[in-house]
Amino acid sequence: MRVLITGAAGMLGQKLSAALRSQPFDRVTIDALDLFDVVATTVVDPVDSLLVGDLAEVGVAEDLIARQPDVVFHLAGVVSGEAEANFAKGTRVNLDATRALFDAIRQSEFVPRVVFTSSIAVFGAPFPDVIGDDFHLTPLTSYGTQKMIGEALLADYSRRGFMDGVGVRLPTITVRPGAPNAAASGFFSGIIREPLNGQEALLPVPRDVRHPHASPRSAIGFLLHAAQLDTVALGARRNLTMPSISVTVGEQIEALARVAGNEAVGLIRESADEAVANIVAGWPQTFDARRARDLGFVCESSYDEIIAAYVADDLV
Amino acid sequence: MRVLITGAAGMLGQKLSAALRSQPFDRVTIDALDLFDVVATTVVDPVDSLLVGDLAEVGVAEDLIARQPDVVFHLAGVVSGEAEANFAKGTRVNLDATRALFDAIRQSEFVPRVVFTSSIAVFGAPFPDVIGDDFHLTPLTSYGTQKMIGEALLADYSRRGFMDGVGVRLPTITVRPGAPNAAASGFFSGIIREPLNGQEALLPVPRDVRHPHASPRSAIGFLLHAAQLDTVALGARRNLTMPSISVTVGEQIEALARVAGNEAVGLIRESADEAVANIVAGWPQTFDARRARDLGFVCESSYDEIIAAYVADDLV
Repeated sequence: MRVLITGAAGMLGQKLSAALRSQPFDRVTIDALDLFDVVATTVVDPVDSLLVGDLAEVGVAEDLIARQPDVVFHLAGVVSGEAEANFAKGTRVNLDATRALFDAIRQSEFVPRVVFTSSIAVFGAPFPDVIGDDFHLTPLTSYGTQKMIGEALLADYSRRGFMDGVGVRLPTITVRPGAPNAAASGFFSGIIREPLNGQEALLPVPRDVRHPHASPRSAIGFLLHAAQLDTVALGARRNLTMPSISVTVGEQIEALARVAGNEAVGLIRESADEAVANIVAGWPQTFDARRARDLGFVCESSYDEIIAAYVADDLV
Repeated sequence: MRVLITGAAGMLGQKLSAALRSQPFDRVTIDALDLFDVVATTVVDPVDSLLVGDLAEVGVAEDLIARQPDVVFHLAGVVSGEAEANFAKGTRVNLDATRALFDAIRQSEFVPRVVFTSSIAVFGAPFPDVIGDDFHLTPLTSYGTQKMIGEALLADYSRRGFMDGVGVRLPTITVRPGAPNAAASGFFSGIIREPLNGQEALLPVPRDVRHPHASPRSAIGFLLHAAQLDTVALGARRNLTMPSISVTVGEQIEALARVAGNEAVGLIRESADEAVANIVAGWPQTFDARRARDLGFVCESSYDEIIAAYVADDLV
């Protein structure tokens, strides 16, 4: 079996590549792994082909699909903050490139499984206390809008038999490894990661802020499960809100104290940032995600487990 | 004030043009009416400019927007059955042309009100008994998908201040004037219109089929109200399910009997069509539409009124 990953140089792309090298699928062997991104990924293996290009450029998607992948993980995208600051770039990468990829598949002779990373950014306040699987999508960012359009195309292209798609709406993925980034959601990882690395972390919002989380390990699990799922069970509703745990910042910090003690917690410095707090106020807090759970998608059941996953997988 | 109508040669486009000539707006006068379509509309007036072209062609949308319309009614589109049968054409007209129009507005110097006709085809079964304003969009046709994407772009472009959009999700509009068409929903009009014209009508579904309706007169009222609405009240949620009345086919026929007597009803011939019945089974039946009603959108309160509107406005 041949697998294509777009966005292979990103955090999830690299973790997914590593997971695929250990042959995670039942009954099928991965013979070839095409790693595509705008920049070359640093982690490669003899089984991998390294492919560099811009998916929105004419012919690039067609060339990727001509290699006949059985499974396509479409992770490529620019993040929320960048898509908001640079409308043209966000549209090109998140919308035009997604459509180019899907259209290349539509015009090909075969019907690959396509796993598309969407995001809870497709939702926008005001929200009910618990967001059910039939709540409408009213994104408050261009990123969320572009992901919503990708979901809509994926569902229609699957319904028409052009491809066999599953849209995976990721919650905020913490604890992200690596350096702090400029995303408004960055502090959700930073307040755990930096103290575990003996560094100070800034907390820009009150401790009662509630947010849905899953670990990078769970995110990879979602993608692998989506690649193997019997899609007959999905009917025409191909996009699924993934499971997450809903915890407050205070609960994250209590879990950190249990894992790493009070010295670690002492490295968190409160530094209110009204701009960040306002953005976060428009974000969803708690999802039901019953449909995905019933379909076998699983995540952590406590924030302690999320920290443990970071310590085991990423803490150097 | 200058007003642009795309799809001006269609049934709603012609009725809207006629309504605009009678200066329906408070406090502003319409000085110029640009009537755009792929074919020339047959009904024109000295105040109108007749413009013919393909909105998806490069430069066409820019030329329309360079005329600086204050209000744009974007009605152009291919219908559900055609968009399903001809994917490329549906995508070009319903998706690419809409995006071309919105992008021409985005790149212009001003911010017109844009009234976009969406459709209840953005919804797909299974449904709750009454569909609320926060129910998710899961279209079961490419037409519904393309309308959903238009809605998403309209909301984001309005949020970013590129335009001031209102998406108007129309229910099935009956009684349509004119000749029968091949749409799967055509019989909802045909079983009323043909008997009122002394002709036989075929009924392809059981009498207990329930469906949401509003008259063409109400549809024009929705568009005019959307053009004048204070959009601050909408917040970021720019797309509205319009009011409708939910009646069964049997109730439509009872209303026909009250208006036109039993001879008219005798012209309806039951002719079961499983293909049509299956399509109709995936359609929504009853909407809450509380948000639109609270914002002042109104429709008929009985099917008798809908028939009366046809008799007054369209029966020759």
